Amino acid sequence: MTESVKFTLPEDRIPKAWYNIAADLPAPLPPVLHPGTGAPIGPDDLAPLFPMALILQEVSTDREIEIPEPVREIYRQWRPAPLFRARRLEKALQTPAKIYYKYEGVSPTGSHKPNTAVAQAFYNKDAGIHRITTETGAGQWGSSLAFAGAIFGIDIDVYMVRVSFEQKPYRKALMEAFGARCVASPSTETASGRAILEKNPNSTGSLGIAISEAVEMAAQRDDTKYALGSVLNHVLLHQTVAGIEAIEQMEMAGDYPDVLVGCTGGGSNFAGLVNPFLGRQLRGGEKVRVVAVEPAACPSLTRGKYAYDFGDTGHLTPLVKMHTLGSTFVPPGFHAGGLRYHGMAPLVSHLHQLGLIEATAYMQKECFAAGVQFARAEGIVPAPEATHAVKGAIEEALRCKAEGKSETILFNLCGHGHFDMQAYTDYHAGKLTDQSYDESELAMALAGLPSVNE
Amino acid sequence: MTESVKFTLPEDRIPKAWYNIAADLPAPLPPVLHPGTGAPIGPDDLAPLFPMALILQEVSTDREIEIPEPVREIYRQWRPAPLFRARRLEKALQTPAKIYYKYEGVSPTGSHKPNTAVAQAFYNKDAGIHRITTETGAGQWGSSLAFAGAIFGIDIDVYMVRVSFEQKPYRKALMEAFGARCVASPSTETASGRAILEKNPNSTGSLGIAISEAVEMAAQRDDTKYALGSVLNHVLLHQTVAGIEAIEQMEMAGDYPDVLVGCTGGGSNFAGLVNPFLGRQLRGGEKVRVVAVEPAACPSLTRGKYAYDFGDTGHLTPLVKMHTLGSTFVPPGFHAGGLRYHGMAPLVSHLHQLGLIEATAYMQKECFAAGVQFARAEGIVPAPEATHAVKGAIEEALRCKAEGKSETILFNLCGHGHFDMQAYTDYHAGKLTDQSYDESELAMALAGLPSVNE
Repeated sequence: MTESVKFTLPEDRIPKAWYNIAADLPAPLPPVLHPGTGAPIGPDDLAPLFPMALILQEVSTDREIEIPEPVREIYRQWRPAPLFRARRLEKALQTPAKIYYKYEGVSPTGSHKPNTAVAQAFYNKDAGIHRITTETGAGQWGSSLAFAGAIFGIDIDVYMVRVSFEQKPYRKALMEAFGARCVASPSTETASGRAILEKNPNSTGSLGIAISEAVEMAAQRDDTKYALGSVLNHVLLHQTVAGIEAIEQMEMAGDYPDVLVGCTGGGSNFAGLVNPFLGRQLRGGEKVRVVAVEPAACPSLTRGKYAYDFGDTGHLTPLVKMHTLGSTFVPPGFHAGGLRYHGMAPLVSHLHQLGLIEATAYMQKECFAAGVQFARAEGIVPAPEATHAVKGAIEEALRCKAEGKSETILFNLCGHGHFDMQAYTDYHAGKLTDQSYDESELAMALAGLPSVNE
Repeated sequence: MTESVKFTLPEDRIPKAWYNIAADLPAPLPPVLHPGTGAPIGPDDLAPLFPMALILQEVSTDREIEIPEPVREIYRQWRPAPLFRARRLEKALQTPAKIYYKYEGVSPTGSHKPNTAVAQAFYNKDAGIHRITTETGAGQWGSSLAFAGAIFGIDIDVYMVRVSFEQKPYRKALMEAFGARCVASPSTETASGRAILEKNPNSTGSLGIAISEAVEMAAQRDDTKYALGSVLNHVLLHQTVAGIEAIEQMEMAGDYPDVLVGCTGGGSNFAGLVNPFLGRQLRGGEKVRVVAVEPAACPSLTRGKYAYDFGDTGHLTPLVKMHTLGSTFVPPGFHAGGLRYHGMAPLVSHLHQLGLIEATAYMQKECFAAGVQFARAEGIVPAPEATHAVKGAIEEALRCKAEGKSETILFNLCGHGHFDMQAYTDYHAGKLTDQSYDESELAMALAGLPSVNE
């Protein structure tokens, strides 16, 4: 009998509830503020944008929030997602460490995003909504919401960051295959988009700009709401299916992680894996080291300021306290488009402030090198975002080798790279560069943080 | 409790043996002939191209052939593959039929091809081979052998049909990510390639030409063998893991298919699903109708001649009896590159001659329409090849609706379309055309069949 490399749970072990870490935090999250008054906002302030069920999840402190049966029914198409032991990678690294990864690329769109897209589409459908607007960076979120819209019969309008729209035409094709509409952002459809284009007709866009456009469109119509693919508490909540399953799968493996690794853009795949483990620790269970890996070209956790800021460039959203590079910061156009956000989920920022997680940053070329090493050993080509987690996990495994320790490392392989092969083509052709942001632009963006911080 | 849509087998139900239908056939396969002498060839004649273990499988009449444990270990990464009930598609079609599909797109390269790639790489490694040459059409086979080569440490050289090489650069990127070398065919590396380019410098290539190139390179070196991704008996044999699992999964569903549907290019995904079911029928078990669906632009089963022919354009291979359009036939450049082969697997051709299977052909636009309908209902975007099976299954379901019958339909969804999104882009832009072959060219190609048929 060969040693196990795959740990699969039966269908009835799809979690029945999401895990809400707010119930176990030693200090509560700072409140969300109204941008005009600076006063904490209530659920009603968010009602133009989200159905009430999601708003209540956003502010809930219940530890468990039941997953509706129609959502679990869709989850069953690909969940429980497999957890693998990367034995061939361990061998290639000659490390005494044990490396595991939770693989979320088995979903219909190849990433973790459908975990929340399906839930959000369900609650919108339940509230009688006919159309949802959203933004997307690399397109993983947009195509996932398009998939969920097709399943529940909701029209989906996606504002896609222009640089990705042009680099990744096939994500648009995927959205269209699911029946969604995909528009390059900044667009002329919105006041926010037109304002940007007036200043800079060649703007390559950013998540912050695309969020402004989607929010603006949703706020105008009663039958239309807005959906976000990361950052918010309820989005991170929906992703905890990954961590809940992983705890049970590690038990199957007779093991428990010493180190957890995830890549962070908005923070949702990271929190999805990490929060259920941190919850155990907070309730007196096993301690675990947690490493967030971000791109050195958009380093909100490692170089940003923990401050109140807008979630978007057009300043249409409420103010949230988070690690931010400033809402006007536009990162260079590197390939991990899903990690090109100026802020970090308030919840992940809070965990960092509380000392529960560490953060580190890598350049894109070293991440692609890690991705190729992983592909040749394990047979799966990671998404550019996920190569950051791979790089982080390999670095931990090499540290273990240097220190002669056989620690257990678990990382979230949040998606495959099938729609990102141009990046691999560029990598192999030696065309990939390590672009950095402009220090003076960062300083300016940070100087422009809203006055509530003063 | 909601009704089941997914039938998953535990890991220990990965088959321990492949199923060889040769053991149950009412009449044996016609022999393979030497092109020079016209006499049946023996195992030794194939030794320059294949390791002996595979040659013995090619001619075996044993019903079960054991799957080596190292192959099963790799299979465990994605097998057993799921079987789904397409309840949302049934609802969209308002059919009383029950539609099931076996989904092979869960493999690392997104198709059924790794089932045989891993096996072939294993037997080559076992025989001390350092390099394997092969051809690929759409790239599904080439990337799968590249994956298997990375796992077993074998160099892989892939000759990719030029029209696909240009249409699908990301398949090449995937092969490179796995460490393989991918060359556009016809190339200047081989005598066969140079001969074609001399006659037609703009040749878009064909599988027949690419096979000649790969075979020529393999025959020149002792440490190099050749691998084929379809057509041959041992390739079809390796694919039977799909059908063996599906029989057990249909039992889980408390059902049994009245109709089986698969798309046919070389015939391997089709035979992989169908043969284990036909085997039961041949041994006195349940009867099943079997429908092979091929592209109308390359219709070997529905328009070809059942005759001895070469497997390649350069006439380097032995002669096999099969449904063929003639080895010089070059089909138009439609998007289902994996179905652009002038012949059909001898075994599938034989099943057709014996009256055990039916065949039908569809144009590419109606297949893409079926693919989009499937994607919106089931959340999976099918590969262009697989849209033919989807179209065939939908037609059967609509027939059931017209006849008021609630038959059970099972089809093989042999791969996802993540690397074929340009085709969907073209479809949505109204740019897809229904190209047909030239009747006079077909007549000429058929007139040129080797003289052994006379």
